[in-house]
Amino acid sequence: MNFREKLEHICVKNDSILCIGLDTDYTKIPKFLHTYENPILAFNERIISTTKDIVCAYKLNLAFYEVLGFSGTETLMKTLDLIPNSVLKILDGKRCDIENTAKKYAKTMYEILGCDATTVNPYMGYDSVKPFLEYKDKCVFILCRTSNRSASEFQDVGDKPLYQKVAEKVKSWNRYGICGLIVGATYPEELRIVRNIVGDDIPILIPGIGVQSGDLTACVKYGTNTYGIQTIINVSRSIIYAGSDEKFDETARLRASDLNTKINKIRYEKIRR
Amino acid sequence: MNFREKLEHICVKNDSILCIGLDTDYTKIPKFLHTYENPILAFNERIISTTKDIVCAYKLNLAFYEVLGFSGTETLMKTLDLIPNSVLKILDGKRCDIENTAKKYAKTMYEILGCDATTVNPYMGYDSVKPFLEYKDKCVFILCRTSNRSASEFQDVGDKPLYQKVAEKVKSWNRYGICGLIVGATYPEELRIVRNIVGDDIPILIPGIGVQSGDLTACVKYGTNTYGIQTIINVSRSIIYAGSDEKFDETARLRASDLNTKINKIRYEKIRR
Repeated sequence: MNFREKLEHICVKNDSILCIGLDTDYTKIPKFLHTYENPILAFNERIISTTKDIVCAYKLNLAFYEVLGFSGTETLMKTLDLIPNSVLKILDGKRCDIENTAKKYAKTMYEILGCDATTVNPYMGYDSVKPFLEYKDKCVFILCRTSNRSASEFQDVGDKPLYQKVAEKVKSWNRYGICGLIVGATYPEELRIVRNIVGDDIPILIPGIGVQSGDLTACVKYGTNTYGIQTIINVSRSIIYAGSDEKFDETARLRASDLNTKINKIRYEKIRR
Repeated sequence: MNFREKLEHICVKNDSILCIGLDTDYTKIPKFLHTYENPILAFNERIISTTKDIVCAYKLNLAFYEVLGFSGTETLMKTLDLIPNSVLKILDGKRCDIENTAKKYAKTMYEILGCDATTVNPYMGYDSVKPFLEYKDKCVFILCRTSNRSASEFQDVGDKPLYQKVAEKVKSWNRYGICGLIVGATYPEELRIVRNIVGDDIPILIPGIGVQSGDLTACVKYGTNTYGIQTIINVSRSIIYAGSDEKFDETARLRASDLNTKINKIRYEKIRR
């Protein structure tokens, strides 16, 4: 099975296009965990164990592990080991470099860390993405329209805005069906345009729901393909930090489950029409 | 001293705007080092020790250390410790993310790893660069026109090409004098345009000399400011892999020294005129 088939399979099995972002920050996790040997790992373990049947993927933001120095790499790898194979592992590093260097990044993400998908930045063009396309059973999510306030500064440059050119190019790079795009939930109209450009076959990873206040209804409606899939809605802080006491993991599950129900309602309404 | 002053000081002291890129690859270092306890570190140690008086900086490409997993972080940190404080340390990761995440990357580069400068990708706009600008004695080099073949794919989008807009914006972000730009030596005309846009006060990091065949004369002439400085010419593979026997470090020094002499000849001719 390639990534797209795996994604479809797990979305159907868990009835979920929700991804939980493990942007785990020592200063934000429940205080009682601070006495544990590895607080970050203990936190991740409990979040994964209580939510793994209602998500399609976990996304680990590399910045939050790199900042821990030596122990960060260990915590990252141990967290990846805790994620069951039935659920997809996305490593979010937004790497971008010349081909010779990009090969090393691709090897790190796919071979050393063993993720199913990673994220890259398109600024340097095709040859910087090419090494990631050599891994035929993986997926590379390419930044298109990002969720932050300054997104328009460079992504809207040109008569046809840059982000649309990126979407068109990525469609043309997708010979082996292993490209995906990233579009922020905070820009629903741009999301609609991108889904129209790429058609049904390219998965879109959507951050920006939750703390960043993206529009859930619009992003599910516009982001999913004709069949209500090939979209991954990533939510980090508003799920994992929903609770702050001993039962934080149960609170996170309730929040995730509630959000997933809302997402599915929008998905099913869209398909039914 | 801020970064620009440090750079000027070391360029004068070592009579050099040359930076050696420690893109150290196990498969490319001399075979006799393979029996050492840490071959990469042994290689870096000897390159640094024989060249530290004829360079202004070393640039470490993070991809080459991340691919080593656990031991990569250790080798990276130990290599940084080997670089004398009189020479600048540039960590090349080309990171790019929303503000909340970019803060972590900036902390990793500047506080955990303790470099003098790092590299970022501008695709997400100002708020993704902002956390790096909080470190007033450091420098953040922002990708502008990259050295690779596909560079034009997105960087030339727009009536006024994107890379020129990036240069203009970076100039406006440079209130505290801590921004730099990256322009590949393979595009001398674009380099000339960028230097004209930003004036004398922004340092330009120039990769692409050596294996990537950039034009040395043009890039020194167009890249340096009115005073023949505020440019860092980075060369990696063609210096560090110049020799493959026991005396590889001496060969690397000869190559670096020869290149530095050529660079200075062009610099001094430019200033004299």
